[in-house]
Amino acid sequence: MSPMPQRPSREDFFKKARKKVHIAISSRDNLLIQTVSAVDELNKSSNLLFERLTEWYGMYFPEFKTPDNAKYVQGVLALDRANPNHEEIQRIFGPQAQSVEDKIRNSMGSKDFSPEDLAQVRSLALQIQSTWALRNSVEAYEAKIATELCPNLSHIAGPELAAKLVAQAGGLQRMAMFPSSTIQVLGAEKALFKHLKSGSKPPKHGLIFQHPLVGQSPRNVRGKIARALAAKLTIASKADAFSHNFIAEKLKISFETHAKQIIAKALQPPANRPKQG
Amino acid sequence: MSPMPQRPSREDFFKKARKKVHIAISSRDNLLIQTVSAVDELNKSSNLLFERLTEWYGMYFPEFKTPDNAKYVQGVLALDRANPNHEEIQRIFGPQAQSVEDKIRNSMGSKDFSPEDLAQVRSLALQIQSTWALRNSVEAYEAKIATELCPNLSHIAGPELAAKLVAQAGGLQRMAMFPSSTIQVLGAEKALFKHLKSGSKPPKHGLIFQHPLVGQSPRNVRGKIARALAAKLTIASKADAFSHNFIAEKLKISFETHAKQIIAKALQPPANRPKQG
Repeated sequence: MSPMPQRPSREDFFKKARKKVHIAISSRDNLLIQTVSAVDELNKSSNLLFERLTEWYGMYFPEFKTPDNAKYVQGVLALDRANPNHEEIQRIFGPQAQSVEDKIRNSMGSKDFSPEDLAQVRSLALQIQSTWALRNSVEAYEAKIATELCPNLSHIAGPELAAKLVAQAGGLQRMAMFPSSTIQVLGAEKALFKHLKSGSKPPKHGLIFQHPLVGQSPRNVRGKIARALAAKLTIASKADAFSHNFIAEKLKISFETHAKQIIAKALQPPANRPKQG
Repeated sequence: MSPMPQRPSREDFFKKARKKVHIAISSRDNLLIQTVSAVDELNKSSNLLFERLTEWYGMYFPEFKTPDNAKYVQGVLALDRANPNHEEIQRIFGPQAQSVEDKIRNSMGSKDFSPEDLAQVRSLALQIQSTWALRNSVEAYEAKIATELCPNLSHIAGPELAAKLVAQAGGLQRMAMFPSSTIQVLGAEKALFKHLKSGSKPPKHGLIFQHPLVGQSPRNVRGKIARALAAKLTIASKADAFSHNFIAEKLKISFETHAKQIIAKALQPPANRPKQG
């Protein structure tokens, strides 16, 4: 009788499983996904605190408004209604300085904000600034990982958008297996499934709307340009995941030429357009 | 003919309106409400970032777990798997130090975390620590305002709970007009309206569940104790809003005696209980 082939032991199975887990959690894809989510959450967190800041500081100086959030925070840290520092106000607000000073004089905000009351609301402003600084640093790090991990995608779409696409797809290998039509609407899953379920209009673009040639083009050509961009990104993702060749320069030029043609054609007056059919 | 009484001008109306706005936004109630919301949002924000931290750091050291979030963050800042610092580990983890060291030796986490990768995840840990520190400072400030604004409520319920009750009621004056039954379920509006709409059980306590004599008492007497506490808080809020007398010492003692009686009665074996009816 020939000996039975030895079955792998329980230990062997554990070893194998541990190795697989190790590979999965160690991948640079995973690190990229973490940074994309971290940037997202730092944004959420700073928005939450910023909203509170405007309401809280609004007790002291309700007339103070500016569309620039960073300036608002600077204002909170600098403005003292009792002793306005004119140079400081000039430095921060430039041409708007005069209007800020007028508002300070006529404010109907609380008059009995003690120095401690002001210090507390300012400490919230400082926290928001430090959250923004961390967000920027993580974003730069995210761009660095994206450029290393997927140089082709990053060259065409820019590293931030490339990172978001890879994160949304759940990894570079997965993304490289997607058809172009999926990549075109990555990030617009809600609209896509609504379309499939209830027959509403299908989305024309997902995350790639953030590419300036998609999002800043005339509305009626955005779908076409999104399709062209998705086609190139599909090729680029395969190169990043499998061949590791850098082929993005050609792809980028070809996409940009194509996009400009589409826009030029749409801008032609109808009479000059070549007849169809 | 007697002259018509002069009608107030548009200007006068504006002046009056501005004054009313000024009073409303300047009130210490409003400041208290801002701090309660700020503490809430700082908690939300740090929880959001902490969850990301565990997932991100989990790539590097997935076996590291501790129920104490502050210790987890300390660990992230201190643990270097390549060169574990034994004294530091001993200092942070005390009796668990050995188990942490074992886990470091057998970790299946990523081996190619560069110093930069580690620095980035640590900067998130630092941000969480600073959010906690700010939360604590705002909480102390909130307690201070509560003790000044509503000394009676703060004495009975503790300043944090008093602050939350006033914020939930929308101001001290409003709270002072509420009946005791409303104060008992302040903060449990969802359960209350569900009860009114669909006939589910009514809530026995809202925010006042956080008082140790309510939340930490046996389940079957919590409703009774909550009712007793709400009765005293109702009286206290009226004193804080209108008479400004400090009457809370008596109220507190009377409530605590009552609560202890309720608990003692519930713990008696059924045979010893005085017959009812």
